[in-house]
Amino acid sequence: MRILVVNVNTTRSMTEAIGARAREIASPGTTVVALTPAFGAESVEGNYESYLAAVAVMETVRAYAEPFDAVVQAGYGEHGREGLQELLDVPVVDITEAAASTAMFLGRSYSVVTTLDRTVPLIEDRLLVAGLHTRCASVRASGLGVLDLDRDPDAAVRAVVDEAERAVRDDRAEVIVLGCGGMSGLDAAVRARVDVPVVDGVTAAITVAEGLVRQGLRTSKVRTFAPPRSKSFVDWPPARRDGSGVRTTR
Amino acid sequence: MRILVVNVNTTRSMTEAIGARAREIASPGTTVVALTPAFGAESVEGNYESYLAAVAVMETVRAYAEPFDAVVQAGYGEHGREGLQELLDVPVVDITEAAASTAMFLGRSYSVVTTLDRTVPLIEDRLLVAGLHTRCASVRASGLGVLDLDRDPDAAVRAVVDEAERAVRDDRAEVIVLGCGGMSGLDAAVRARVDVPVVDGVTAAITVAEGLVRQGLRTSKVRTFAPPRSKSFVDWPPARRDGSGVRTTR
Amino acid sequence: MRILVVNVNTTRSMTEAIGARAREIASPGTTVVALTPAFGAESVEGNYESYLAAVAVMETVRAYAEPFDAVVQAGYGEHGREGLQELLDVPVVDITEAAASTAMFLGRSYSVVTTLDRTVPLIEDRLLVAGLHTRCASVRASGLGVLDLDRDPDAAVRAVVDEAERAVRDDRAEVIVLGCGGMSGLDAAVRARVDVPVVDGVTAAITVAEGLVRQGLRTSKVRTFAPPRSKSFVDWPPARRDGSGVRTTR
Amino acid sequence: MRILVVNVNTTRSMTEAIGARAREIASPGTTVVALTPAFGAESVEGNYESYLAAVAVMETVRAYAEPFDAVVQAGYGEHGREGLQELLDVPVVDITEAAASTAMFLGRSYSVVTTLDRTVPLIEDRLLVAGLHTRCASVRASGLGVLDLDRDPDAAVRAVVDEAERAVRDDRAEVIVLGCGGMSGLDAAVRARVDVPVVDGVTAAITVAEGLVRQGLRTSKVRTFAPPRSKSFVDWPPARRDGSGVRTTR
Amino acid sequence: MRILVVNVNTTRSMTEAIGARAREIASPGTTVVALTPAFGAESVEGNYESYLAAVAVMETVRAYAEPFDAVVQAGYGEHGREGLQELLDVPVVDITEAAASTAMFLGRSYSVVTTLDRTVPLIEDRLLVAGLHTRCASVRASGLGVLDLDRDPDAAVRAVVDEAERAVRDDRAEVIVLGCGGMSGLDAAVRARVDVPVVDGVTAAITVAEGLVRQGLRTSKVRTFAPPRSKSFVDWPPARRDGSGVRTTR
Amino acid sequence: MRILVVNVNTTRSMTEAIGARAREIASPGTTVVALTPAFGAESVEGNYESYLAAVAVMETVRAYAEPFDAVVQAGYGEHGREGLQELLDVPVVDITEAAASTAMFLGRSYSVVTTLDRTVPLIEDRLLVAGLHTRCASVRASGLGVLDLDRDPDAAVRAVVDEAERAVRDDRAEVIVLGCGGMSGLDAAVRARVDVPVVDGVTAAITVAEGLVRQGLRTSKVRTFAPPRSKSFVDWPPARRDGSGVRTTR
Repeated sequence: MRILVVNVNTTRSMTEAIGARAREIASPGTTVVALTPAFGAESVEGNYESYLAAVAVMETVRAYAEPFDAVVQAGYGEHGREGLQELLDVPVVDITEAAASTAMFLGRSYSVVTTLDRTVPLIEDRLLVAGLHTRCASVRASGLGVLDLDRDPDAAVRAVVDEAERAVRDDRAEVIVLGCGGMSGLDAAVRARVDVPVVDGVTAAITVAEGLVRQGLRTSKVRTFAPPRSKSFVDWPPARRDGSGVRTTR
Repeated sequence: MRILVVNVNTTRSMTEAIGARAREIASPGTTVVALTPAFGAESVEGNYESYLAAVAVMETVRAYAEPFDAVVQAGYGEHGREGLQELLDVPVVDITEAAASTAMFLGRSYSVVTTLDRTVPLIEDRLLVAGLHTRCASVRASGLGVLDLDRDPDAAVRAVVDEAERAVRDDRAEVIVLGCGGMSGLDAAVRARVDVPVVDGVTAAITVAEGLVRQGLRTSKVRTFAPPRSKSFVDWPPARRDGSGVRTTR
Repeated sequence: MRILVVNVNTTRSMTEAIGARAREIASPGTTVVALTPAFGAESVEGNYESYLAAVAVMETVRAYAEPFDAVVQAGYGEHGREGLQELLDVPVVDITEAAASTAMFLGRSYSVVTTLDRTVPLIEDRLLVAGLHTRCASVRASGLGVLDLDRDPDAAVRAVVDEAERAVRDDRAEVIVLGCGGMSGLDAAVRARVDVPVVDGVTAAITVAEGLVRQGLRTSKVRTFAPPRSKSFVDWPPARRDGSGVRTTR
Repeated sequence: MRILVVNVNTTRSMTEAIGARAREIASPGTTVVALTPAFGAESVEGNYESYLAAVAVMETVRAYAEPFDAVVQAGYGEHGREGLQELLDVPVVDITEAAASTAMFLGRSYSVVTTLDRTVPLIEDRLLVAGLHTRCASVRASGLGVLDLDRDPDAAVRAVVDEAERAVRDDRAEVIVLGCGGMSGLDAAVRARVDVPVVDGVTAAITVAEGLVRQGLRTSKVRTFAPPRSKSFVDWPPARRDGSGVRTTR
Repeated sequence: MRILVVNVNTTRSMTEAIGARAREIASPGTTVVALTPAFGAESVEGNYESYLAAVAVMETVRAYAEPFDAVVQAGYGEHGREGLQELLDVPVVDITEAAASTAMFLGRSYSVVTTLDRTVPLIEDRLLVAGLHTRCASVRASGLGVLDLDRDPDAAVRAVVDEAERAVRDDRAEVIVLGCGGMSGLDAAVRARVDVPVVDGVTAAITVAEGLVRQGLRTSKVRTFAPPRSKSFVDWPPARRDGSGVRTTR
Repeated sequence: MRILVVNVNTTRSMTEAIGARAREIASPGTTVVALTPAFGAESVEGNYESYLAAVAVMETVRAYAEPFDAVVQAGYGEHGREGLQELLDVPVVDITEAAASTAMFLGRSYSVVTTLDRTVPLIEDRLLVAGLHTRCASVRASGLGVLDLDRDPDAAVRAVVDEAERAVRDDRAEVIVLGCGGMSGLDAAVRARVDVPVVDGVTAAITVAEGLVRQGLRTSKVRTFAPPRSKSFVDWPPARRDGSGVRTTR
């Protein structure tokens, strides 16, 4: 099967890291295609950027020409998953939800450790809307920006471990979820230092997506995710500065 | 004061109707500027279109060159309000929330009567995220598309009245909220036929926005709605097909 | 239009301060009538006094002989608003709810800073019943009694600012609500010292009430707030010690 | 021990019926004193009357000169219990809560069958505030006024049985609670016709009150129910028309 | 009447202590029969042991040959009450629920002080399932194992008092519930040192059970607690090592 | 990897059907071992039987002598998963939760279609405790007993399809979950007749369990699922009638 893994920001090194992590966990026979949105912000750390990412991810997937079996949206706490589910029949898995759902099989409560404090409310709201919030002990910020993770992974691990320990001790978390697509791959280092399970959203989402495809399950089309109605659009999708339409970059 | 009232779709006649309704209720001294997004769908009836509208409204407001005191987002149940709140210091009022909040002063529970069934979940989720859901008795669909409202207002009134009556009788609603920006102006006709208060989101939002401005209140910037961080964007904002940048149309 | 603003305690200087604040924010053309209940406690700081205030406010409004367009109940967290809504057709706005509703337009969460710790549960329960509790981060007590506010406004500001800062830092509040009618007018001084929006319940309620009246909206009469049934009463309303009936004092 | 059972309306025949039912269930050694408020409405069927009853019950109990061990407030869904808890050290048991709590020991969910539809919201709100709502399947109205119960007990039983059967069939109630002090004594007749347990609030409250007294338990005074602070009152308690103060009638 | 009080562990001295406490509070005319399960763990401090206790208590009650009027399950936060309710017509009262329900009559919120931290989640889940969680301020662990309570009651009192004080100060608890059957009898000593009401689950359950019996109330049989269907069992109930069937020990 | 799939009842033909279904979906390299409890009921349709099954499954897994990588508990809405998680380090996946979690990736809401009405509350409570209830539209009973499924699969499909259609139409379900281990294998036939995704708990659980193992994730041991403390047991595990200990049957 072929799974598209779509980064939410335009930083290609991050797309590559996410793709590499996805390929490590994917089953034999699964092809992972990692995509970078054709437009948007270099990192997503707030609602403005997140709404833009939602649209960019949708257009990026729509512009992808080959067939595929599932899509993973690899941004933690971002908007947009519902739109992809309208546009597609194949399963759409958001790493926010895949990680939360996975954590709930491992302990009675989980905490998310994310980047900046300003992204905490986005994550909380996305978990609320997904109905996965009741066993969430806390969402904690490490204080690192998304791009800091790339620049100094050791510092990132230390900051994440510090918050993870506080979550276990003060919030009674029993599982830690890495709350940023850019943290994908840090899980081994974090696990080595905390004594609770650590969930990586990207690997969680790949196994969930594979499981759905193997079971022949697709998105329900009866109501919320029915295909968009046929209608006119003004000036959309956007022309690129070079005059062509949206193109994705892997 | 000057209040921007931004339609979420690109149908200018609807922008005009919304603007006219806003001006009717506005206080002396308030200037209402009605804006049509520079890109997007002719009507918003699902998540894909709603996410696109969120971004289009944000870029439309950013491209508006004059000073203003508040923004009203005139789409019922649409995404995006949080992004505007990040971008702006002045109050941002979504008609979904203004109408719900207004209804809660008039009766113990309210029902929303909207257009298509597929938009019901969007509205429910937006009310949930806003924390205004606990006194919502139901969100009901009249079965009419957004553009149908414009084409046959009499039929729209009949369909809305039918669902309003069901909401009062079966769901114990005590107040009815008109759940579509395009229904703005139907409230008088609906009120004439149902014996509970009927709330129009546009007029509710204008009075809320004026009240906030008069009290000197602005969006909190300490956390969720802090201004976006400075960063690079790829291919955004979009070039228009004619080569220029985003321009709003009133 | 004419709006009655009813204090919940019998301290006339507090009625005057509330009335003054209401007149400052009221639109041209709005007449504010501030009323003091004809009986009750000099300050309301608990359930016994609050229930008594509920009844006193109702009788005071019933005894008011002139026509009016809306009523504001100017006690924070007090009982009684539902009874007024039964008795009247015009809108009834409780400052507890107006302030909470206003705060929710300005930030993702709000905290209330009130007087004594013993009144915290009353406020929490009123917000719960009103359905405005889910975005309430905390209700905090400054430790000052209601009458202390009057006696030493500087100390009151300091105590409120201290708790406001704790609410922002520890409870993640993004907006502060002044949780006592007697704090009305302190908002400017508090705002000068904290960097989040500060909401005054009295001004919030006046703008809400004006907005409802301008929209022609009245209390729903279909169920919860239907007029009381005709029936016999024993020894009520109370005779005054001088033998006359209930009379309000402005 | 001596238990005061206080009716919420001024209809003495109803006080007598409630007192008789209480005495039937009371243990040997328990003295039941049934009191009628000195002022108020002949029946309580809405918020105005209920707030008035709250105050009347409080003054009635304060005016009672003999020592007592517990108070039962015998109105279903009425305001006021929190005020009594402030004024007294001995346990205060509201029949609304005693009946709900009792029902929860007998089945997974319960429904309340009350009098008029307009009182349903009062009951729902009181259960919410008491934290006893999550296992409440529904509150249903029989359509009978409070005084109708007295006038035609047979019709009352039929109306209650009809709604009880609907609650069991449609709302999945497993236990029925009689939702009016005036229904006390109908439980045997209702039980004979429905095949689920039927709880009478008055008998439930008497057994709860006796149990609390036997265990030496009293109302907590640390916060919510701390005694009222010493302060001045204007024109309260009310003078009676004959010039004397509040006197209770048994 | 005869009430069976069933310990959840196999430690007979604890059964005796529970039985003694139950007899102290029981009314004249009530016979308390204290039973020890025929199999299971010497103390119940986790899910494995609690599920085993659930089954052991059920078989113990089934094997009891004499008639009885009610059953009290004397383990705090343990599984199994629903099974007993299926098997029996008479009321079944779990001390977890009886204590919570009792506490809710005495203050606005309560905290449970239990033994080991690992049992806190069991108690929280049982209160959630019973619908008695919304007024629970916290469940706190004293750090003592169940059998430690027996060995050093003075140390147990000190540890419970410490946590009770934290619950009152930090969690705003107004009532303390002793969260272990083995704490039964410590309430007097704890009460002497904290200034809020202290509820003992065993005495609470006895008074609740007596009250239900006196009112002629029995478990609802229409749905959740309908008698088990007739069916075949493999190797159950268990043979005892000596070859006989389940026998209870008092 | 080796996954134990444990039936909750003692009917071996059902164990075989569940095992067959599990093997169909399992990845190459996964060995599925289907176990029948050594004791218990031939079908589990209520709390008594479910508590017994919880204990029987635990003892069955403890008695299994070979190493294994994960356990699937194949009963819908049954007790016991928490106990297995204490006893084991490897992941434990309950089909109730795996199916709910899977359904939530496919639509905004799901309904469970189960066997008898009396099992509905068990399922609702298990979903509540797992924190997977907020997106559950309804749990519906087909009216068939567990063993009826085996006897007449065609009638079972018809009954399930009927309720599934009602759930989609009346409860707004977007996904259907088959709510009984014994329905495993009916999903293809049900899917052919309803136009929403149909989730089989057994296949969902196998893919979840494989995903957890592939990610190297194990049950958190810091609190709720810490290993049982060392202690004495009386007469447990049970002797079999032939004198030997618990033995599982595949």
